[in-house]
Amino acid sequence: MKFHSKAIFPRGFKCASIHCGLKKEGNDLSVFYTDYQANAAGVFTQNKFPGAPVILGRQIIKRGCLRAIIVNSKISNVGTGEQGIANARRMAAAVAHEFGIPENEVIMSSTGVIGVQLPIEKIESGIVGIAGALETDPLVGARGIMTTDTHPKAISMSVGESVLTIVAKGSGMIEPNMATMLVYIFSDADIASNRLDDMLRNAVRNSFNMLSVDSDTSTSDTCLILANSRAGNVDEEKFATALNFACTEMAKILARDGEGATKLLIATVTGAKSEPEARIIAKAIINSPLVKTMAYGADPNIGRILMAVGKCTTCDSAPEKIEIEINEIPVFANLCRTDFDEIDVRERLSGDEVKIHVKLNIGAGSATAFGCDLTEGYIEENAAYYSS
Amino acid sequence: MKFHSKAIFPRGFKCASIHCGLKKEGNDLSVFYTDYQANAAGVFTQNKFPGAPVILGRQIIKRGCLRAIIVNSKISNVGTGEQGIANARRMAAAVAHEFGIPENEVIMSSTGVIGVQLPIEKIESGIVGIAGALETDPLVGARGIMTTDTHPKAISMSVGESVLTIVAKGSGMIEPNMATMLVYIFSDADIASNRLDDMLRNAVRNSFNMLSVDSDTSTSDTCLILANSRAGNVDEEKFATALNFACTEMAKILARDGEGATKLLIATVTGAKSEPEARIIAKAIINSPLVKTMAYGADPNIGRILMAVGKCTTCDSAPEKIEIEINEIPVFANLCRTDFDEIDVRERLSGDEVKIHVKLNIGAGSATAFGCDLTEGYIEENAAYYSS
Repeated sequence: MKFHSKAIFPRGFKCASIHCGLKKEGNDLSVFYTDYQANAAGVFTQNKFPGAPVILGRQIIKRGCLRAIIVNSKISNVGTGEQGIANARRMAAAVAHEFGIPENEVIMSSTGVIGVQLPIEKIESGIVGIAGALETDPLVGARGIMTTDTHPKAISMSVGESVLTIVAKGSGMIEPNMATMLVYIFSDADIASNRLDDMLRNAVRNSFNMLSVDSDTSTSDTCLILANSRAGNVDEEKFATALNFACTEMAKILARDGEGATKLLIATVTGAKSEPEARIIAKAIINSPLVKTMAYGADPNIGRILMAVGKCTTCDSAPEKIEIEINEIPVFANLCRTDFDEIDVRERLSGDEVKIHVKLNIGAGSATAFGCDLTEGYIEENAAYYSS
Repeated sequence: MKFHSKAIFPRGFKCASIHCGLKKEGNDLSVFYTDYQANAAGVFTQNKFPGAPVILGRQIIKRGCLRAIIVNSKISNVGTGEQGIANARRMAAAVAHEFGIPENEVIMSSTGVIGVQLPIEKIESGIVGIAGALETDPLVGARGIMTTDTHPKAISMSVGESVLTIVAKGSGMIEPNMATMLVYIFSDADIASNRLDDMLRNAVRNSFNMLSVDSDTSTSDTCLILANSRAGNVDEEKFATALNFACTEMAKILARDGEGATKLLIATVTGAKSEPEARIIAKAIINSPLVKTMAYGADPNIGRILMAVGKCTTCDSAPEKIEIEINEIPVFANLCRTDFDEIDVRERLSGDEVKIHVKLNIGAGSATAFGCDLTEGYIEENAAYYSS
């Protein structure tokens, strides 16, 4: 499977992005629009303190059909009480009015600082006339919702006659600056919303839910899929496979662009007692500050990997059975470091992708997690952040 | 309760510290010795990949009596297989021979890099003659076991006629550089080892087990208590209270000296559904990279605190009931930021102690966790670390 060299929209989808005055400069408001009603499904943050757009989004997505997504950056509309809910509704109402579509087919996202009310009039003014500014390049919409991202993110691939496109922003499910991971998936395939829901949950489980930049779960994470049927029926199995593949690729793109990150970190755990245990251990490895700084420093510090496996005290592991590989080189077995070529391993660790494979050799559970290194850049961005 | 202005040893305890050649320079081997057999108890890391000293230590402590502790820094003797076990035994045997005491009354610790064998001959040579170098200042022993600590750590207080002294090293239970938290508690009170064990477990639960520098649990953490009875009986309830108090103080000292740290971070959670849930949430707050960098940047980013509470998805919390205080100033209630004096709160956050109090207002569970801020210093120390 491969991606188009440049992201395109499926039939019937367009987007627009403007500066409405939330940020000092740069676009801060994007809309994604389909000319035809799309079947839709969505998953949202599990944080117990969700923002107003997530609270409303959970209701809106239940009907299983959407026409538009309206997204602002700079302010997340979280911790804003009743007024926050009212403001989120006003965003949807303004878009419904502008495009002449039903209000309950517009879903909203907000990303940025928590605890501050949206200047809703600026957003409403910005939406007036936005229907006339629609463009066909997904990167336009992607650019308008960036916060700390270093580049806009969109990928596309074909599945039979249909196109599958993902637009995303954020530095992780797990969140610098409360910047939030937002993922919007567009297709012109004809697939029912309940099937989309199944496929989305399955794809998210092994892609975005295995992604972590800093172990901090945002209050606004949102992943939506819209399929407007313009390309007719597709092989659903092939579509689901393509969706998994594309979501995993986007998870890697997000991890690699984690705040301050210089490398993608991929931890694969095989031979665990169960898949859930493999997931816990793979996540512990990519979330360990010591493993992350080891990747940054390109030092083959096997001890830190062992430590990260061992600190998962609820998971089974037997030290004498563990084998570890770093970028395909065996570095630990039989309770001891192997006699590896240190210069070679340091060289591989110096690249922009660090792969750690832990073989527990006690069962059949496996999982892969995606993260990034931890650098001074992360500290600088987040310590300098001014919340008000 | 208050501490002596300078740490002293209880009656009968002494220590020595030398350079035996593991480090390029500086002391790397310490021994703590009691002239009289001490009742003893200990707790060890829960990491599933414990080092040889922890594997043996668990057996040794079962008899409930000790005469000496031998500790080396630079190499942790973890991930070293059968040879590691043999080397740990040789450390104890050398001390037993040097002091003319039973080998099974000598316990050992090692701290430093994982996966490298100890140059045991250097340690054995170093132990020869160490009995003639005993001193009465606990800081001497504390200095010899430092790794990335910026200062040696020892505190003392009186409990009735007895003295209670804690010597410790490390930047956290949760571990930069696999540097390991080692805590040795000495007293001349007359208390049975099974009572010491109860008291120690209780004290550790609310002090060292609520401490985190970077969420990475060492493979070598060890906390021992030795009481040699020289001061006779003490009020055990008073002793237990003093032990809790002193362990909590030492946990704060360790957190404040976390790698790269500039501030102590204290998170108190009250009104949780249960004490276990309060502990999970308090730990999530002090472990959140975003809360840690917020403390470093002295920014009252309430959203990050809410996020950290909300990401504890296994714990009950109701957003509308949550109240938050930063250094005693109420900053969040009724789903919104309070109208706090921003300059005042930034001023308080700029001090060397950041206190976050989250009132969940749904139950009676409470807990306090101790951590530190996350700075470029942490990255520099850990990315530059060279493991071999």
